Amino acid sequence: FMKANIIDGKAVAAKIREEIAAKVAELKAKYNRVPGLAVVIVGDRKDSQTYVRMKRKACEEVGIAPFGADLPATATQEEVLEAVRGFNDNPDVHGILVQLPLPKHIDEQAVLGAISVEKDVDGFHPLNIGRLAMKGREPLFAPCTPVGCMELLERCNIPIKGKRAVVVGRSNIVGMPAALLLNKRDATVTICHSATKDMESIVRQADIIIAAAGQAQLVRGSWVKPGAAIIDVGTNPVDDPSKAAGYRLVGDVHFEECKEVAGAITPVPGGVGPMTIAILLRNTLDSGERFITRDVKSKESSR
Amino acid sequence: FMKANIIDGKAVAAKIREEIAAKVAELKAKYNRVPGLAVVIVGDRKDSQTYVRMKRKACEEVGIAPFGADLPATATQEEVLEAVRGFNDNPDVHGILVQLPLPKHIDEQAVLGAISVEKDVDGFHPLNIGRLAMKGREPLFAPCTPVGCMELLERCNIPIKGKRAVVVGRSNIVGMPAALLLNKRDATVTICHSATKDMESIVRQADIIIAAAGQAQLVRGSWVKPGAAIIDVGTNPVDDPSKAAGYRLVGDVHFEECKEVAGAITPVPGGVGPMTIAILLRNTLDSGERFITRDVKSKESSR
Ligand SMILES: NC(=O)C1=CN([C@@H]2O[C@H](COP(=O)(O)OP(=O)(O)OC[C@H]3O[C@@H](n4cnc5c(N)ncnc54)[C@H](OP(=O)(O)O)[C@@H]3O)[C@@H](O)[C@H]2O)C=CC1
Ligand SMILES: NC(=O)C1=CN([C@@H]2O[C@H](COP(=O)(O)OP(=O)(O)OC[C@H]3O[C@@H](n4cnc5c(N)ncnc54)[C@H](OP(=O)(O)O)[C@@H]3O)[C@@H](O)[C@H]2O)C=CC1
Repeated sequence: FMKANIIDGKAVAAKIREEIAAKVAELKAKYNRVPGLAVVIVGDRKDSQTYVRMKRKACEEVGIAPFGADLPATATQEEVLEAVRGFNDNPDVHGILVQLPLPKHIDEQAVLGAISVEKDVDGFHPLNIGRLAMKGREPLFAPCTPVGCMELLERCNIPIKGKRAVVVGRSNIVGMPAALLLNKRDATVTICHSATKDMESIVRQADIIIAAAGQAQLVRGSWVKPGAAIIDVGTNPVDDPSKAAGYRLVGDVHFEECKEVAGAITPVPGGVGPMTIAILLRNTLDSGERFITRDVKSKESSR
Repeated sequence: FMKANIIDGKAVAAKIREEIAAKVAELKAKYNRVPGLAVVIVGDRKDSQTYVRMKRKACEEVGIAPFGADLPATATQEEVLEAVRGFNDNPDVHGILVQLPLPKHIDEQAVLGAISVEKDVDGFHPLNIGRLAMKGREPLFAPCTPVGCMELLERCNIPIKGKRAVVVGRSNIVGMPAALLLNKRDATVTICHSATKDMESIVRQADIIIAAAGQAQLVRGSWVKPGAAIIDVGTNPVDDPSKAAGYRLVGDVHFEECKEVAGAITPVPGGVGPMTIAILLRNTLDSGERFITRDVKSKESSR
């Protein structure tokens, strides 16, 4: 038996970003317009500020125009809503995302709900989730991290149709949409969560495991069917005095054990992580393309 | 081992209808208003006409006001949409349903999409399905047949949390929403469909089986874990020369075999069937209550 193929998320993400840059350049050449992504951030949490900076930089690298609203932690709900509505109305903005978490005094559901469904590049709107669940419907956008998981499976030629898939976790942003995407691709999906009993024996039946529980090294080598594909979404900080930061990140999967059993496995970091931003950029590109070509058509027909 | 408890859907549905009638009477006494349900039917398919008549009769029995639009098979898309919009605007109508299937020249998705989410008592709107899939969200309405399945489990005191559930079928109106409801109630759910392999061994792990594949007697006795609860949604006509009609209805479960193994099982007919209309009435009651008390409050606050 050969050791698992280590899936290089960084390389796949770089490839996707190249594809995006090429398409953005095409739009620019053809219509003299580019997709635009607006990021709304409230407060000065260091981690959130870092994520937002990374997203802005990623936009610039592929030629997507970055927009932003950087509101103080004391901003009122109405001010946050105003920022979102401004971007809804801005024809140069094709994607809007609100960096979470928001300060406690802001109603997250109301703010997310204010984003135009057509600019919901995070894919969190219930209308998009509903379409993801339904036969014969397609969401305008699906959530970035689960789409990233699917891309990794597909670009590694891992068969999905008719395979048993187990998703550990059922959050709105990872577990549930991952399960719905796998179902749409005709896997037979089981959704596990904190009330699941004897999870080990369920996971052991899976040809595809998506781990998104936020529990360091939850999935052990003994839980894995030989040859299974493992996508590890977890990013959990664990103490590590040997690191300058005093900690390192580990996944929801025990990598060292599982790589001896699996057929393919993503590392943490360098697996799913880089995919999330790549898919965010692609969702923004898709949206920009939709808006820009629609504008062109409506101008043509009004002549 | 004792034989399965045969779940009497007719009796449970009758009980629910009684509860509804009592609440409608309460609304009537308190506000002098009753919930209203509008059914739109297009064309003269005999089965559809029968269903619509049954729904009207069921409304009348519990005191819900029935409304209807009976359009000819030649009606245009615009005429059907007009009928829906009229009911959207009618303050005495709190639930709207369009009897399916529609004639081929009518765009079903457009017509269903035109129903106000707040009056979508069938629960088919993607916004309602999305909320059903999401943590921390609740749909205004969930689809009637799967809610009926859940009611049967609950009223028979069948535990759900932490149990393994297998749903056979993933349609928008039965399988998928059933899976999402079971997940919301903390079962560990596996969704099977036509691409599922070795379904037998998957079903055999289930504490709860919901069969909604539209395949006569698909689930055999040998597929069932002793003591499992079986909810059989299927209603399939099979030839039976001994019947006056020339056929009889059977479920997606082989009843004779499975009742010897299961802990509880619904018969066909008389199981899930009667529940669907009962839940439709309850969704309409809930909607009527929501509208009527909201109207009262807004009148009070405008005084
Ligand atoms: N790489 C990336 O780009 C991203 C990484 N992440 C990482 O992915 C992980 C999951 O994130 P997210 O979905 O937001 O987390 P949430 O905390 O929102 O959800 C965790 C889910 O896992 C379930 N769960 C928790 N503990 C267990 C357990 N012991 N056994 C089985 N299920 C369990 C929970 O069940 P229940 O519903 O019953 O509570 C819940 O559904 C985190 O480590 C996060 O940091 C997240 C987003 C993006
Ligand atoms: N009692 C009541 O009130 C109601 C009863 N029904 C009955 O319930 C049944 C299902 O209805 P509905 O959901 O509308 O049907 P659909 O035909 O829309 O969906 C059937 C589902 O079952 C799956 N399926 C079909 N064959 C198999 C198989 N051999 N093995 C595994 N899965 C299979 C299909 O898979 P795929 O997605 O891959 O095609 C599909 O997801 C029917 O008998 C219908 O008459 C329906 C509504 C109400």
